Amino acid sequence: MSDEAEYSLHYWGGIPGRGEFIRLAFEATGTAYKDTKAPATLLSKVQTTNHPPHLAPPILEIGQGTFISQTSNILNYLAPKLGLDGVEDGTAEEAAAIRRAHVNQLVLTALDLNNEAHDVHHPIASRLYYEDQQTESVRRGHELRNFRLPKFLTYFSLVLRANDDCDGSQGWKHLIGNKLTTADLVLFHVVSGFEFAFPRRMATLRKDEAYKELFAHRDGIAALEPIAAYLSSQRRLPFSMGIFRHYPELDGE
Amino acid sequence: MSDEAEYSLHYWGGIPGRGEFIRLAFEATGTAYKDTKAPATLLSKVQTTNHPPHLAPPILEIGQGTFISQTSNILNYLAPKLGLDGVEDGTAEEAAAIRRAHVNQLVLTALDLNNEAHDVHHPIASRLYYEDQQTESVRRGHELRNFRLPKFLTYFSLVLRANDDCDGSQGWKHLIGNKLTTADLVLFHVVSGFEFAFPRRMATLRKDEAYKELFAHRDGIAALEPIAAYLSSQRRLPFSMGIFRHYPELDGE
Repeated sequence: MSDEAEYSLHYWGGIPGRGEFIRLAFEATGTAYKDTKAPATLLSKVQTTNHPPHLAPPILEIGQGTFISQTSNILNYLAPKLGLDGVEDGTAEEAAAIRRAHVNQLVLTALDLNNEAHDVHHPIASRLYYEDQQTESVRRGHELRNFRLPKFLTYFSLVLRANDDCDGSQGWKHLIGNKLTTADLVLFHVVSGFEFAFPRRMATLRKDEAYKELFAHRDGIAALEPIAAYLSSQRRLPFSMGIFRHYPELDGE
Repeated sequence: MSDEAEYSLHYWGGIPGRGEFIRLAFEATGTAYKDTKAPATLLSKVQTTNHPPHLAPPILEIGQGTFISQTSNILNYLAPKLGLDGVEDGTAEEAAAIRRAHVNQLVLTALDLNNEAHDVHHPIASRLYYEDQQTESVRRGHELRNFRLPKFLTYFSLVLRANDDCDGSQGWKHLIGNKLTTADLVLFHVVSGFEFAFPRRMATLRKDEAYKELFAHRDGIAALEPIAAYLSSQRRLPFSMGIFRHYPELDGE
């Protein structure tokens, strides 16, 4: 994005993927970053990344020879630097550590749901085509739509409803505290991904009062100025054949 | 374990499960902790845990009304307090943050392999019996044994081999730096779990020179004094029908 960028994000090109959670953190905070499309040159290459090597992207390059990987880990590292850790100025050290742990907990839980969106079309093996595991996918799709997705969305609806630190006067609430955190961004992207992959199912859930806080949150984040501008830019890669895929045979009301 | 314990671990009773990674951190450092077996009373109960609520155990109780969940998150919170973050005294703040991120990265990658050990016997749904998804399990077992497990173990063997901060004079190396970290403990437990679940496959891999650093690490951690005493105690729950399960039909050379 800028020649002066301090950070470089290394992820596969063409899909939002797990790199998108890092992009959203940069975009939401107006942080300059380079977005490279060739992570394979860094995978398990100690000569390039120094120790420890990295198994999978996203990989964040912080400076000369310093790289970190694992999505939640990159977000946990960046959150305090970008002001996305939910910690107010002047908070004591231990209280700040607990707040960051709570943000990371919510990030990890939303990423668990993200992984289920991947595994539904690859229940046997990532290395095999969807068509080679479609029978199993249809079976898992039924489970995801009817049990796992409602379980996670019920949980996040409760988190939003129970967040007394946020008065919701803007029509929606943050997940924790009264500021935007990485957890808000991750949940927003996962819910958006499910709307792409399971439009019929998500339309049904959107009509259900039990999830009203969740969809208000999703729409509220999408309308925040830096996010809205990003979503309508060329930098926002459309969902296609990545983690979130729309196979009509896996969807249902 | 002690009435004076500062920490309480809330996890299902009877299986090592994901609670075991937290237990190992306490046991390796001689930290007093209570081990409770009734996490269900805390799940999605804001009234008890305060905000945010928790979707799944392990849940760590830190003090009155303060709870955090998600395995890697609990370990990341505890690591600096227990001296398991790989940070040497006097390290500058940013260098310490990067070291902690590298430890957390390795923890997360080992936990990804742990999840695959669960998903192999529940490829369709956690809520269904193994017997109801055994056909899919056998297919996924072939993939895990022949592709996923070697991929992860090759990666961790490289991490060990490439760790120039540890001279290996004790016959094995730490994953990062020259001190025990949560990453060492998590990898040790995951490898031990695979030895229980896939004894034939792991015996074959143990004979392969490509993994010699990995098995030396596993045996070295098991022999460390606080760990060895714990492993032979009543507190160490045996593997049985948890994340790691031995189904002979899923194993193979």
